[in-house]
Amino acid sequence: MTKIPVGILGATGMVGQNYIALLKNHPWFDVRFVAASPRSAGKKYAEAVAGRWQLVNPFPPHAGEIIVEDANDVSRAIAAQRKGECAFVFSALEMGKDETRALEEAYAAAGIPVISNASAHRWTADVPVLIGEINPDHTDIIPEQQKVRRWNKGFIVVKPNCSIQSYMIPLHALAQAGYPVKQLIVTTMQAISGAGYPGVPSLDIIDNIVPYIGGEEEKTEMEPLKIFGTITDGIIQNAELPVISACCNRVPVIDGHTACVSLEFGEKKPAIEAIKKIWAKFKGLPQEQKFPMAPKQPIIYREEENRPQPRKDRDLDKAMSVVIGRLRPCNVFDIRFTALSHNTVRGAAGGGILNAELLKHKGYL
Amino acid sequence: MTKIPVGILGATGMVGQNYIALLKNHPWFDVRFVAASPRSAGKKYAEAVAGRWQLVNPFPPHAGEIIVEDANDVSRAIAAQRKGECAFVFSALEMGKDETRALEEAYAAAGIPVISNASAHRWTADVPVLIGEINPDHTDIIPEQQKVRRWNKGFIVVKPNCSIQSYMIPLHALAQAGYPVKQLIVTTMQAISGAGYPGVPSLDIIDNIVPYIGGEEEKTEMEPLKIFGTITDGIIQNAELPVISACCNRVPVIDGHTACVSLEFGEKKPAIEAIKKIWAKFKGLPQEQKFPMAPKQPIIYREEENRPQPRKDRDLDKAMSVVIGRLRPCNVFDIRFTALSHNTVRGAAGGGILNAELLKHKGYL
Amino acid sequence: MTKIPVGILGATGMVGQNYIALLKNHPWFDVRFVAASPRSAGKKYAEAVAGRWQLVNPFPPHAGEIIVEDANDVSRAIAAQRKGECAFVFSALEMGKDETRALEEAYAAAGIPVISNASAHRWTADVPVLIGEINPDHTDIIPEQQKVRRWNKGFIVVKPNCSIQSYMIPLHALAQAGYPVKQLIVTTMQAISGAGYPGVPSLDIIDNIVPYIGGEEEKTEMEPLKIFGTITDGIIQNAELPVISACCNRVPVIDGHTACVSLEFGEKKPAIEAIKKIWAKFKGLPQEQKFPMAPKQPIIYREEENRPQPRKDRDLDKAMSVVIGRLRPCNVFDIRFTALSHNTVRGAAGGGILNAELLKHKGYL
Amino acid sequence: MTKIPVGILGATGMVGQNYIALLKNHPWFDVRFVAASPRSAGKKYAEAVAGRWQLVNPFPPHAGEIIVEDANDVSRAIAAQRKGECAFVFSALEMGKDETRALEEAYAAAGIPVISNASAHRWTADVPVLIGEINPDHTDIIPEQQKVRRWNKGFIVVKPNCSIQSYMIPLHALAQAGYPVKQLIVTTMQAISGAGYPGVPSLDIIDNIVPYIGGEEEKTEMEPLKIFGTITDGIIQNAELPVISACCNRVPVIDGHTACVSLEFGEKKPAIEAIKKIWAKFKGLPQEQKFPMAPKQPIIYREEENRPQPRKDRDLDKAMSVVIGRLRPCNVFDIRFTALSHNTVRGAAGGGILNAELLKHKGYL
Repeated sequence: MTKIPVGILGATGMVGQNYIALLKNHPWFDVRFVAASPRSAGKKYAEAVAGRWQLVNPFPPHAGEIIVEDANDVSRAIAAQRKGECAFVFSALEMGKDETRALEEAYAAAGIPVISNASAHRWTADVPVLIGEINPDHTDIIPEQQKVRRWNKGFIVVKPNCSIQSYMIPLHALAQAGYPVKQLIVTTMQAISGAGYPGVPSLDIIDNIVPYIGGEEEKTEMEPLKIFGTITDGIIQNAELPVISACCNRVPVIDGHTACVSLEFGEKKPAIEAIKKIWAKFKGLPQEQKFPMAPKQPIIYREEENRPQPRKDRDLDKAMSVVIGRLRPCNVFDIRFTALSHNTVRGAAGGGILNAELLKHKGYL
Repeated sequence: MTKIPVGILGATGMVGQNYIALLKNHPWFDVRFVAASPRSAGKKYAEAVAGRWQLVNPFPPHAGEIIVEDANDVSRAIAAQRKGECAFVFSALEMGKDETRALEEAYAAAGIPVISNASAHRWTADVPVLIGEINPDHTDIIPEQQKVRRWNKGFIVVKPNCSIQSYMIPLHALAQAGYPVKQLIVTTMQAISGAGYPGVPSLDIIDNIVPYIGGEEEKTEMEPLKIFGTITDGIIQNAELPVISACCNRVPVIDGHTACVSLEFGEKKPAIEAIKKIWAKFKGLPQEQKFPMAPKQPIIYREEENRPQPRKDRDLDKAMSVVIGRLRPCNVFDIRFTALSHNTVRGAAGGGILNAELLKHKGYL
Repeated sequence: MTKIPVGILGATGMVGQNYIALLKNHPWFDVRFVAASPRSAGKKYAEAVAGRWQLVNPFPPHAGEIIVEDANDVSRAIAAQRKGECAFVFSALEMGKDETRALEEAYAAAGIPVISNASAHRWTADVPVLIGEINPDHTDIIPEQQKVRRWNKGFIVVKPNCSIQSYMIPLHALAQAGYPVKQLIVTTMQAISGAGYPGVPSLDIIDNIVPYIGGEEEKTEMEPLKIFGTITDGIIQNAELPVISACCNRVPVIDGHTACVSLEFGEKKPAIEAIKKIWAKFKGLPQEQKFPMAPKQPIIYREEENRPQPRKDRDLDKAMSVVIGRLRPCNVFDIRFTALSHNTVRGAAGGGILNAELLKHKGYL
Repeated sequence: MTKIPVGILGATGMVGQNYIALLKNHPWFDVRFVAASPRSAGKKYAEAVAGRWQLVNPFPPHAGEIIVEDANDVSRAIAAQRKGECAFVFSALEMGKDETRALEEAYAAAGIPVISNASAHRWTADVPVLIGEINPDHTDIIPEQQKVRRWNKGFIVVKPNCSIQSYMIPLHALAQAGYPVKQLIVTTMQAISGAGYPGVPSLDIIDNIVPYIGGEEEKTEMEPLKIFGTITDGIIQNAELPVISACCNRVPVIDGHTACVSLEFGEKKPAIEAIKKIWAKFKGLPQEQKFPMAPKQPIIYREEENRPQPRKDRDLDKAMSVVIGRLRPCNVFDIRFTALSHNTVRGAAGGGILNAELLKHKGYL
């Protein structure tokens, strides 16, 4: 199979670097186009990230040779598309919200599908927030989006915030089995890589916790409602439940967001062992279709009383699985548990790639 | 004023070391008797803790000269009492629960009051769990305790677990102002010093979180009910509320336990600003009586959106204040906030000393 | 090719776990026999390490099923050897020096070759301390060892301490190119995993450095002389140079020992650029013979001024390469540089496996 | 005694904050004037540092009320001097080298003595680099400096880099006792607070070491020669010895620079025990004159084999003592030892205050 040529917007930033690294040997996609800020434009990718490459694995040699384009100049991507070097783009733009929104729309208007990691379009009513295991059918809004906006081949899809990845799939699995959640209280302990680079100053986080992350609690409370929503009249109508209260903390962990969740079901309340079984056998479309980036088992439950732990569990199954432990009754609500997911893989670039695989499967790419 | 001579059981362990350090210049109490395991007995205190002293401040020179006694041998304390060198003891014993319980009772039976940091007697119905700002009148059970057990001068009081200190005083201040709490969900992020020394292996906690601390959640959920309880028929009857659900995590922080609390009041629900005022003006008996170890302000509220932080706030007011921030409405319950207290000072030795000051004030010492 | 069945002594400890993990898909060797302390004996390996498995990657399922034997009982290994399940053993014993020495000799006497990670036999004159890239011919002493000790098929080889791995191969490459080193001063900054589990208490190492590791400086100063030595009269005669002065520190790093080296050559002093070329083209026998565990490039030089860094460079080339940077003239000696190697892979289990590959190649296994 | 009113340039930065905190209850000096960047000018100090205050101890309330002036506008300090609110300034400027040099000269030219923490003037031949215990007589160059530059009351003195503080006093004590050092090799492990705020990104230093600090090794190698120099012909002539080779690393420690030193004496070589005695009894002018900021014992030697440790020893004696341990013979040179000093106190603001005390004592303030 000939690989689909893809582009990365914001390729020199931390999420962009993760895209480069994770797409290294991807069976369907091949990075051929990279764009970043004007400062990097014109340099080879290797030069542009020299001294700024954050990942343990080095970037693939061929990626280092690609000349970085100016991400603000959509004509460069159009030219690349014509040359067969950019069928769609992953957006890891790190500019302001309004600029990001406008720029992603400009790419889509130019006929280039945008699979975005940025938060700019998460609340645009006709842009789906996709998690492949949960709402793959929200891609159905794409034709509507294209029609209303008079876009030809281009469109925009986004992925949700990294803080909710660890418990959204488990909640969905329970809802699907007949046990929707009514309300939940969650406290997150989030890794420093979530703040990008340079991000969190070391003086703020060694021997310390920062009990606040700007905008994070709002995202954590609202985005699940859109993901659990339904398409009506050409837009995504939010679900009404669950009501979520989130408290987000930054902790001295490199990668991996941990969440302590207490929740109350609606009328039907499953037993603890039933929940474990539901999670153990849950498979989503990515698993059924064996997408390359999909974890074999989206929810891994660990029976040890002191797991999951970020350093020891974050990398399970390509760092794409959610790892859960400590499921037990809650004194106040019905149950509580601790959940973990890798914020820069499942919660960022890996999740974006899984969305691209979904769109390819659905015929949109 | 002549200082009261005091003894420390378990003086070489981490809590014992804190007692030694915090009593250094105490205006009322003077450490004259130290006891520990048979391994240390017979050595000078300085030798017994050589290479094991964990605190930044060195121990006072005169303490280093005291000969360590065997804590299992109550006759040593009786002899010291006769010589006017041990009016009462702080217990920082680190043995098994049953042994601790029996040994503390033996000291009390021998006429030596025991002010304990250990958890052994927290669920003994006639032993009060004291927090000076909350339930100073629970000392009223001491005469009952002595009568039933036929103890003469001796008695036992304990302090609660370190994980609940940060939000118990704020809850009490609200209840006292007419706003009792019905239920709460709390996630704690607890410092490694809470596990003693050697305690948590570094391989378990650098770049990591351990989402479990043995026995901690049960203590966190149950002890508040006894502290909020009432004395009836010679025992302490637990309060029925609040219902508490706790999730306790170990994090890479040296000192200072942080708690994220979401709670629901009963019928009456105070406004956010009213709560801040209640906390700002709250004073307990230790403040009114100006006990030496009492913080001037037991509850410090920080308006900055990213506080409290353990490294930056744990040492406020002799590390005896509770520091709170991020008070805001909760989507699920009524309010939520983040609270911090220093686990080895307010949560251990400092809390024990405050209890001794209370007992001295009440005439029990 | 049928794989050679191998055993692991001390299989449940941290080094033993690394052997299990690293041999997972080894093309030549297959773990069939595991032994540990009597406490673990009789359990399945999975049970024996439950809650103690330290590695990020889980152990291979088939390893979890093997029944752990008592490592003190050599007859178990003999029986396994007869059944074709244990051609030789890797020793990761964690007992006292004398017991280790005696037990390894008992295995060798019973006809079972011992490839040891322990330090017990490093100063036994007829036991070679092997680094495949430096002194592969020290295996020539094995027939002498067997003859003198009247061992039939059994023998003992060891690997050196983890603290010297990062600069020994670079020094050897220079000596081989005609530039032997006369003296060197080295300061190491060593990872906590080097102390095993539970190892370094977190209270000793968060926001801290421990400027001492028991016995480490002596090993660092003496072992290189044996590795650079020559076989004469049936024993290994130490080299006289280089004279080494070492200062070993424990730092808050999970894996990867870093060394700052200043050194003086003998008469001949190479230029900085010449040294880089020597290192870049250096290959040892493991590279020439393409041993499975051998890194393609044993010495990787990084030109960035702020490398090597343990977290970012320790895993290069299966964590078996030495990574060097900051080569520059020294004001006092000739040159100085910073070197890094992964202490639990190249410095422990990975180094042991490379030694086994060497012995297989030489026909001793 | 009426306190001398002092000003602080760069008062909102990290070193400036330390000056504010350390001068809180100073018996001689009273902070009355604070200046910073134009961004802060016009605000109360409390507002200017809101959310940026890095220290555990809060700033003194009266300091919070002072209106911040623009440090670039010397006329503000002149006005303050006339009003009796600024007799001299501590410079903690954080601008470029050339700007700092020029601005400090402008203050001195305007009649305001400058006691600087900045590196800008460390290589100006008529500006002394002062360590009170070592070269208090280098203040003798001040009249020359004033004469040549036609300054009236103003002058400039500086303090050295924080990386050399831990071993310079010990070296000086030995030289004074007749044992000058010929050459030394030092590896430093430096705290993150040395890089200011935001300074080192947490992604660079958790579970990691950065083996490079820009410009630090040159300062570490050269500044001691000026401090050990002599005044000749109106300038400070550098000493020729010791020759120093430094390797400077950033490590995950909050405060406290640790140095591993190997050194060779000249002809005369003291015994290990003699060195300990020399260090134990060493006193400098600050000790003889009992300056308020002077540590009682400038060199503290710890006999424990695993000390000094930054977290446990950095705060000894107001964080102004140098703490040494592990003195032992060196295989290559004569001796080696490990030394520690607190980089933001002795190595920055505390050292600057000690210099001001020296200048007051000498009659220059």
